[in-house]
Parts: sequence; structure tokens; C-alpha cells
Amino acid sequence: MIAVDAMGGDLAPYAVVQGALHAARSGIPITLFGDKAILESLLDKFDAQWRKVPIALEHCAEIIDMHDVPTKSVIKKKNASLVRAVQAVADGNAQAVVSAGNSGAVLVAGTLLIGRASGISRPCVGGFLPTSTGNVFCLDLGANVDCKPEHLEQFAIMGHVYVHLTKGIQKPRVALLANGHEPYKGPALVKEVYQRLSEQKVIDFIGNIEAREIFKGETDVVVTDGFAGNVLLKSIQGASRMLIDILRAETQKLSWWRRMLSLLNISAIKKIKHSTDYARTGGALLLGLRQPVVVAHGCSHAGAIEQAIRFAHRVAEQQFITQFNAEVLSCLKKQHTGGFVSQKVRSVFKWMQQ
Amino acid sequence: MIAVDAMGGDLAPYAVVQGALHAARSGIPITLFGDKAILESLLDKFDAQWRKVPIALEHCAEIIDMHDVPTKSVIKKKNASLVRAVQAVADGNAQAVVSAGNSGAVLVAGTLLIGRASGISRPCVGGFLPTSTGNVFCLDLGANVDCKPEHLEQFAIMGHVYVHLTKGIQKPRVALLANGHEPYKGPALVKEVYQRLSEQKVIDFIGNIEAREIFKGETDVVVTDGFAGNVLLKSIQGASRMLIDILRAETQKLSWWRRMLSLLNISAIKKIKHSTDYARTGGALLLGLRQPVVVAHGCSHAGAIEQAIRFAHRVAEQQFITQFNAEVLSCLKKQHTGGFVSQKVRSVFKWMQQ
Repeated sequence: MIAVDAMGGDLAPYAVVQGALHAARSGIPITLFGDKAILESLLDKFDAQWRKVPIALEHCAEIIDMHDVPTKSVIKKKNASLVRAVQAVADGNAQAVVSAGNSGAVLVAGTLLIGRASGISRPCVGGFLPTSTGNVFCLDLGANVDCKPEHLEQFAIMGHVYVHLTKGIQKPRVALLANGHEPYKGPALVKEVYQRLSEQKVIDFIGNIEAREIFKGETDVVVTDGFAGNVLLKSIQGASRMLIDILRAETQKLSWWRRMLSLLNISAIKKIKHSTDYARTGGALLLGLRQPVVVAHGCSHAGAIEQAIRFAHRVAEQQFITQFNAEVLSCLKKQHTGGFVSQKVRSVFKWMQQ
Repeated sequence: MIAVDAMGGDLAPYAVVQGALHAARSGIPITLFGDKAILESLLDKFDAQWRKVPIALEHCAEIIDMHDVPTKSVIKKKNASLVRAVQAVADGNAQAVVSAGNSGAVLVAGTLLIGRASGISRPCVGGFLPTSTGNVFCLDLGANVDCKPEHLEQFAIMGHVYVHLTKGIQKPRVALLANGHEPYKGPALVKEVYQRLSEQKVIDFIGNIEAREIFKGETDVVVTDGFAGNVLLKSIQGASRMLIDILRAETQKLSWWRRMLSLLNISAIKKIKHSTDYARTGGALLLGLRQPVVVAHGCSHAGAIEQAIRFAHRVAEQQFITQFNAEVLSCLKKQHTGGFVSQKVRSVFKWMQQ
């Protein structure tokens, strides 16, 4: 059973209900949390036969929106769709939760209701970013904007384990985002983390990396605080969007026959969109929690929601979080004594390296 | 006279000497600071007649390289080319200085030797980034990685004045880089700056902006600390490079005749490169110093160095820094009482909005 916050997201509940319906049709059991009357009328509209697919509804009278302050709203709005959906996982009534709502509130609800994994002080958001040669796993992409050195050290270990499990790389290269390669570069936080990671024995720390170098594929993991990580992620999205616009505008300038011949651009635009499209994977897994929590993008359309639900379902089914947390804990225990932990990589997780 | 640090930069002294020679040929008087024997042999190699162009040489026995810690090296290496070139401006022997060397050391040398402008506690690096509709002025792009709220408040005022003077916009829109629009978003620093800028009466503060939104052209100025600013700048450069690579790779896949017809891509690639090419303008002006100091990119080739020298020459000739500093000081004095300052925009500076 996947718990879905039907009221969270810029296009909710419309897009969320539609996406959930698509996912449920393929046999994934789903519980939608939200205003029951609205949800029923939407489901009726999309498919008169919806009661035949495995969708259940849970009525929630409240909504946490993008303007709500995370901690305050999670504590106050106990009957909000977001809180109730997360609570369902905490209570064991669902195996994973998906929300496209206020991601800060999802993080707070996950931390308070589901709880942090052993040894982790701050759960974070990790995700793959495109590079010339494939992709790189970056964390934190936006959950923790004010970090302490120990948080980034934990992110480094979580990144190491994530790439180890999903890509089967024995010793993933781990780099620290900075404004230069030299150890003296970066804010006080980065300098201290550099020092700590240099002394780490579990991960393969390759030093500082500049944002420009990330795209060359010179590292497998990039560690940063949630503020810089968010700037990195959003710059890539914004710059790609802008460049696609330039490409389209240039195509418009051509004569019709040249434009027809320039099918190339369609393929190039597709490729660029593909490598930077955040709707393709649907969402990101919160790392450092005891159960699977997937945050979908606020602007998710139905297709992205469907992908996020499929992703959450598969993560839950294969008990990825259980193995991930066990390996992270094992690394945390061994971090200053050395030695790699699980040498056996379960190839079942390879599908996660989107 | 423009002082040029001939030994600073990844391709120095070769590219710096070549670029300086090109600039000097157009009549800009230049003094090159560096190892005299090396500089002379390079000049001889490039042009046997170089003594006929306005190039002077100043021998400096030391070099500050990229691995030197800025403050320490500037204080210890008094005879380094970078330090001596900056000193020449401080002493009134040159009107501006250009260096592609260790930018942290250029900042320290500028601050210690030339001195900060009245009312400014931290000089910073500002520059125009491309958007779908033109460009946006962003500061700090990397000079100050650990900032206090008052520093960002000063950056906001400097950004306001810079865009006012160079683009002739009466009330440039000023936004604060954050991970969401809401006032509660961002690290503690950003939240406090949001509060301060909301109370500002001199600038037109339009609130927080996400990195993704910057490219839509919804603001004229983006204020951020030097760490996030550097991540923003370098992500754009890296992502553009990667997308150009994708475009080129797609072109290679076509048959030869389709490739010939796809001249479109050449124009699109040119346009993309043009809008993100940091070599085109050559360098960025350090804002908040008493004299013009231009930092060129570390990887500058001869063409970029030439552009940086031309830029520095024009800035010095038109006494941009004098007017800029006067207007900034005037804004700082009026910041909580309101009222725009200089209504008269000297259109002579419009060329600076690259």
C-alpha cells in the first residue's frame, strides 16, 4: 500500500489523482489522503469504473500549503493530508508515502512521525544529476539549509552507500562541493568538512570539486549543504530550460524546408530534456528515515506523480531502505577504523540509477 | 596605464603576454609585472617590433599561484607580480589592474593596498548572467564565502547602483537568492537579509528568487553570498558546456548531407556559447574598492585577457569607479530614509552591460 498526499503540489489534487489512478491501474494499491468529496468527484470524472482499481480514500480536513512554515504546520495541522499520509507509514498501514507538497513539511513529518535511521541526525534529499558521461549522485538537494560539519559527513556516507547499492560501484568517488579544488577554499563549514572527510576511512574522498567540474563525470557523489545543493539543482534546470528556448528560437528563424530537415534539433532537444527532466523519475527518496518517503516536485503533472508512486512502490517492495540504513549504520561504526562494509551488491537496486 | 599581472592564470605568462600585446597595439599603455627575462623572450617571439607598442616591463621575482592561501601570500610575497601590479594602482602609477591569478589574493591585495570604498565592509565580484530575455546582474560571484547580513545588504545596494548606471534602469528590481519564494526559506543568513532588505527604502526589493527563476528575466539584480553565487555561476557554465556537447554529439550522428544542412546547430551553438561565454567580457570588476581592479578568469586565453584589459582601460578612462562609489555611499546614507539618489544616468556606461 502506497500512501499518497493528494492535496500536495501546485497541480493538486487534479494531477495527483490522475497520476495515482494510472499507477493503481497497473496493480499498485494506493490510499489517497485528502478531501474525500473532491477526490471522489475527480475519480468519477477520470474513470467511472475507478472503484475496480485498488484505490482507497482517507478523508483529511486540512491542507498544508507551500506558504505554511514546515515545523509549525506539521505540529498544528494533525489532520492535514500530508501529515496523515506520513502517519499511515509510521503506523504500518502503508509501506511508503509520496507527496508533491511542501517538501520542508514532508521532511519534518517524516522525521517526527517515522523517525530517523540509527546514527543519522539529519535526513536529506539525494538525487542523480546529469553529466557528460552519465550521472552523479548529489546530496543534500534542499532539505537542510543550515548544516553542521557532522551532517555533511553523514551525507557523504549516505551518498557512498546509495551509489554503492544502486550502481554497484565498490568505492564510489566522493567529492565536496566548493569554489575551488584547494583545501582552503569554501566557507568555514566546507573547510571543516574537508578535514573530516580526509580523515574518513570508509569512503573514497577525492577532495573539493567546483560546480563546473561536476558535469565532467569526475566523481560519483557530490556532498553539499541543502542550500548550495538546491542552487546547483535549480541552476541546471533553469539553464537547460533557457538553452532549449534558444535552440527553439533559432529553429523558428529557419526557412520551412530547412526546419523540416533539422530533425536533429528535435532529437537534441529531446536528449537535453531527457537528461535534465526532473519529472522523468518522479521524485527523490528522503535518505536517513526509517521508512520510504518520496518527495515529488511541487510542479509535478500526472505523469511525474505516477512515476513517483511506481518508484516508491518498488523501493518498498525491495526493502531498499532497510538495506540502505543497515549499511549506513555499519559504515558509521567503521568510519574511523576503515574497511569497506557490504561487498555484496544487490543488483536488484540497479534500476534506481536513473 | 593598465597594470597587468603577467604571471597570474592557468595559461600565464604565455596567454597574458599575447593578450596584452594585442591590447597595447590598439594604443592602450600597459605595464606587465613578472619575470622580465621570460616576458621579454615571449614578446620577442610574438613580435620582434614589440618595443614600438606601449608596453613596459616591471621585474617581479615572486609568483602567487592558485595553491597559495590568499591573505598569507599577499602579506609575505611583497615582490609577487600580483601584489606589485595592485600596488602600482595604489601608488597612482596605473589607473587599473588586471589579473587572471588567484582571485582571492587579488581581492586581499586590492583591499589591503588600494583600500575599500567608503561605507563598504566587503568588496565583492559582480557579473551579468544570461537570461531568456537578456541578462541579470549577480553578486557576489565568489569573493566572500562567509558573509554577514550587513555584507549582503551592501551587495544589494552595489547591485542596484551598478545596474542603474550601466543599464539606465531607474529602479532595478533586486531579488535575494533562496530555495523558495517564501520569506521563511533559506539559511539563517538569507532569512535575516530578507528582513533587512524588506526594510530598505533605497532599493526595489522584490523578495526571494529560486535559482531556476533567475533565467526567466524576472529580476535585474540577484544578491547572494560568494559561495552560492559561485555555485550558480559555475553550474551555468558547466551545464551549458554539457548541453553543447550533447548537441555536437547529436550532430555527429547525422549523415554528412544532413549535417551540412544543419547549419542551424552552428548558429544555435554559437548563440548558446555567446550567452554563457565568460571569456567574451574578459573579466569582472571588483566592486567596493577605491580603484578599478579586474579579475579575469583563471583559464583566460589571450583573447579573454585582451578583453579584460580593454574593459579595465575603459572603466578607468570613464572614471566609472569614482561615480559608482559616490552613488553607493549616497545610497548607504539614505537607505533607511528613502529616496532615489542620482536620477541622471550617464549613458556612457551602457557599454558595460555585456
